[in-house]
Amino acid sequence: MTAEYPTALGAASRETITLLGHDLARDVMGEVSFGELAFWLATQRRPTPGETRVFEAVLAALADHGFTPTAIITRLTYLSAPDSVQGALAAGLLGGGSRFLGVTEDCGRFLHEVLVEHRPLPTDDAGWDAVALETVQRQREAGKFVPGLGHHVHKDGDPRTPRLMTIATEEGLYGPHLALFAAIGRVHPQVLGRTLPLNGAGVCGAALADLGLPLELLRAFALLARTAGLIGQLAEELRHPVANEVFLSVDLNNRPTDPDPLDPPDL
Amino acid sequence: MTAEYPTALGAASRETITLLGHDLARDVMGEVSFGELAFWLATQRRPTPGETRVFEAVLAALADHGFTPTAIITRLTYLSAPDSVQGALAAGLLGGGSRFLGVTEDCGRFLHEVLVEHRPLPTDDAGWDAVALETVQRQREAGKFVPGLGHHVHKDGDPRTPRLMTIATEEGLYGPHLALFAAIGRVHPQVLGRTLPLNGAGVCGAALADLGLPLELLRAFALLARTAGLIGQLAEELRHPVANEVFLSVDLNNRPTDPDPLDPPDL
Amino acid sequence: MTAEYPTALGAASRETITLLGHDLARDVMGEVSFGELAFWLATQRRPTPGETRVFEAVLAALADHGFTPTAIITRLTYLSAPDSVQGALAAGLLGGGSRFLGVTEDCGRFLHEVLVEHRPLPTDDAGWDAVALETVQRQREAGKFVPGLGHHVHKDGDPRTPRLMTIATEEGLYGPHLALFAAIGRVHPQVLGRTLPLNGAGVCGAALADLGLPLELLRAFALLARTAGLIGQLAEELRHPVANEVFLSVDLNNRPTDPDPLDPPDL
Amino acid sequence: MTAEYPTALGAASRETITLLGHDLARDVMGEVSFGELAFWLATQRRPTPGETRVFEAVLAALADHGFTPTAIITRLTYLSAPDSVQGALAAGLLGGGSRFLGVTEDCGRFLHEVLVEHRPLPTDDAGWDAVALETVQRQREAGKFVPGLGHHVHKDGDPRTPRLMTIATEEGLYGPHLALFAAIGRVHPQVLGRTLPLNGAGVCGAALADLGLPLELLRAFALLARTAGLIGQLAEELRHPVANEVFLSVDLNNRPTDPDPLDPPDL
Repeated sequence: MTAEYPTALGAASRETITLLGHDLARDVMGEVSFGELAFWLATQRRPTPGETRVFEAVLAALADHGFTPTAIITRLTYLSAPDSVQGALAAGLLGGGSRFLGVTEDCGRFLHEVLVEHRPLPTDDAGWDAVALETVQRQREAGKFVPGLGHHVHKDGDPRTPRLMTIATEEGLYGPHLALFAAIGRVHPQVLGRTLPLNGAGVCGAALADLGLPLELLRAFALLARTAGLIGQLAEELRHPVANEVFLSVDLNNRPTDPDPLDPPDL
Repeated sequence: MTAEYPTALGAASRETITLLGHDLARDVMGEVSFGELAFWLATQRRPTPGETRVFEAVLAALADHGFTPTAIITRLTYLSAPDSVQGALAAGLLGGGSRFLGVTEDCGRFLHEVLVEHRPLPTDDAGWDAVALETVQRQREAGKFVPGLGHHVHKDGDPRTPRLMTIATEEGLYGPHLALFAAIGRVHPQVLGRTLPLNGAGVCGAALADLGLPLELLRAFALLARTAGLIGQLAEELRHPVANEVFLSVDLNNRPTDPDPLDPPDL
Repeated sequence: MTAEYPTALGAASRETITLLGHDLARDVMGEVSFGELAFWLATQRRPTPGETRVFEAVLAALADHGFTPTAIITRLTYLSAPDSVQGALAAGLLGGGSRFLGVTEDCGRFLHEVLVEHRPLPTDDAGWDAVALETVQRQREAGKFVPGLGHHVHKDGDPRTPRLMTIATEEGLYGPHLALFAAIGRVHPQVLGRTLPLNGAGVCGAALADLGLPLELLRAFALLARTAGLIGQLAEELRHPVANEVFLSVDLNNRPTDPDPLDPPDL
Repeated sequence: MTAEYPTALGAASRETITLLGHDLARDVMGEVSFGELAFWLATQRRPTPGETRVFEAVLAALADHGFTPTAIITRLTYLSAPDSVQGALAAGLLGGGSRFLGVTEDCGRFLHEVLVEHRPLPTDDAGWDAVALETVQRQREAGKFVPGLGHHVHKDGDPRTPRLMTIATEEGLYGPHLALFAAIGRVHPQVLGRTLPLNGAGVCGAALADLGLPLELLRAFALLARTAGLIGQLAEELRHPVANEVFLSVDLNNRPTDPDPLDPPDL
């Protein structure tokens, strides 16, 4: 017996192409925005206009942050292998891991785990503050950071954070993940003895989780946003290149050293 | 003297984040759709609503085609390395090369080269037909295909093609690349002796070129669309997995053969 | 002040090229085998012939296992994007993650952690058995597997395991990681109530750790071995292709289903 | 009927594992060097010791060239995504394209095409010089470079070139590709009016082609060599990191500019 592979995504017959059960040409092309479609593909349900607006606000927040490692990687890969645009984009995305893009996923998952443990959920700010206080204390006692708290540049506040909270509120999509994240912002100085900003990557994770997107793929949405940013980086590199200068700034400033033999660890 | 690296993309100070010279939080988040932003990043000019609609129609047309190699690759990579969502997406994009996603870029570039050689451009269908006829004849004499012509499934017509032409016309963005492509659709039977469909990947390349997007990066937009599709594939794999069954269908049906030593070519 | 970037690896002047402080053309090319060089590059110390033999035995053990996901991924990527050999190899390596290639690293690290906790190390088999027994019990109590224990095919024993232990013994490189791994093989039935094989990926991790290679990069050596295997897969695909048939076996057996809307998790 | 997938590479039964028809544990591990195995996997024939020595000399020549784009890319990817060693290696390999690693493949293929056109091949230096002269003249007239000719650093000669020719001669493997390449080195000044070095990447391509390795995969061997080099880069990065400083040297020296809107090309 031959295996069958079920899918609700793209399908084609001689006459028609369907996507998610809809006629692609007639009902999707020209009718569904790209952000809406990305949400729909990930959840197999069509988002409301409000959900699309919050989702696209997140994508905008994460699309490009200038000369991040991912941007430099994509530009250098294109310098070195201009025959493969797909390679340049893929290389940049591979930089989207735990350190530079992972906060979005880490924060969304972290908040979710806390919420699961605190059902029924609070119904007012005092209740949220209590949960947040316990959460920050527990992380501190375990010697762990709270994902989404702190930023090396925006020390007085990341402008994306209040903005995304406002947008979510406007669309009636300010849910428990955002509520807990906001409470963490209010109470953490009591525990940590200093005030840290709630960063943009973190608030994006909270908002994506409130949208009901799959927690295992929160990083994937950051990568989708970044794909658009990396295309921007490539387009700028084509007209205003910097990659060769970056390469030479490293290569010409190499300092040859003696080998440093690795001793096996003492046992 | 230290090098400086110019960029008009993302920039950040302690208080603000800008993107393309605009305040990210205030003017982009919640105000700019993701498709619009992707266009803007690639061209550094904000598209009109009509340009955004055509652009997003292209992205919708290319986002997912079911179990393509790219989809299978992403699912198998996730099966094998679930620790790295970025790796699964990057691997799938690496399948976006000359054969399965390249038609969009090949077609846009091809049409553009023909247009450059035929300035001033025709102003009526008869003029376009003459250019198209010469073009198809020249390709045939060179033993080459016309990019964008033919489809292994949609033999009687790819439904995306007339739809995208309609959308471009509605938005006043039916330009010379689409006009030439349409003319190729009309005249090629005279040369080839049979009628082939204008395929969806090709019409997308023509539409992207008419939008003035950089020809070197047409493939990149197909990859952006596909990133959304691959996230859909991953999301479906999480809930309705097929990758392990695909893997086993190959592995369990391996047939061990004797080595076939490679002889160096005769010289 | 301009940054300087120290390195003991490759360096070039107008007349000479050095690698690890040696004249590349005169002292490395034709004098150093590839396995030896790979070890040297990773540790900045030249391995002994015995170390090289054990290292190359590990690489041989991990190079190719037939139609693994990584092999299928590389073949499908090449089918889809034959313009980019680097993309096909990179995509295959991206499948080298926690599930299919990760055991080597997991096992080496796990054994090392146990050893660090049990200094001074045992000096006879009875001593090793005691450490192993405690280790297996602790894992079982924590509901965790012992990395390197068990194999879905080689249920009666993985032939690579005794062979690599023999080679290491012959070269005087049977160290504490291998000793602990062997002891786990002896004692685990007392705890688990059944006999599982010590698998090849695990013994490779133990051997690499005994060679003093960096624990953070044990997976990297598996990937190096696999790169050679993936080139073999590509070379076979060029002459005896299967990728298109694999692709069609999935695509033609797709079964369109209704979308399955993702409900946000209950909170 | 279920498809079958033939392969002569890895296969496993409950008791044994074979690779290329040999018992992996007994006949390959500990018996076959890694370079020998890589050659064998790619050609399905076991190389002679002489072939292995030439092959491994090529791999040594291409393994690492210091702070190339590929090395920088791998280090930056690891900085940004330390959770995925496979991603860092894959990203570096994606830089192995037409510009920085492609010369090996381009040169091997180019020489081969010339040889195919000039059968029967010359039997003495005068004959090779005549072929080389015609070849260089034809490239010049076509406005094209000769692959493998010229080097931006080793202007007076790349030390790898004579060394690899010596090794190939010692092993009786100095074949027509190397002979033609050497002749190009002798005669090109007559045509170009200046003396350029035969570079190391080019001579490696010639030597690999003389070994009868598949021309479509010459780049793959450069990538195999580079994988070992990139592991060396990662190992050094772990102990003597530079990636964060490279990143900051770009990011901190960004110069925000006004957007430069892309005008569609004139038609």
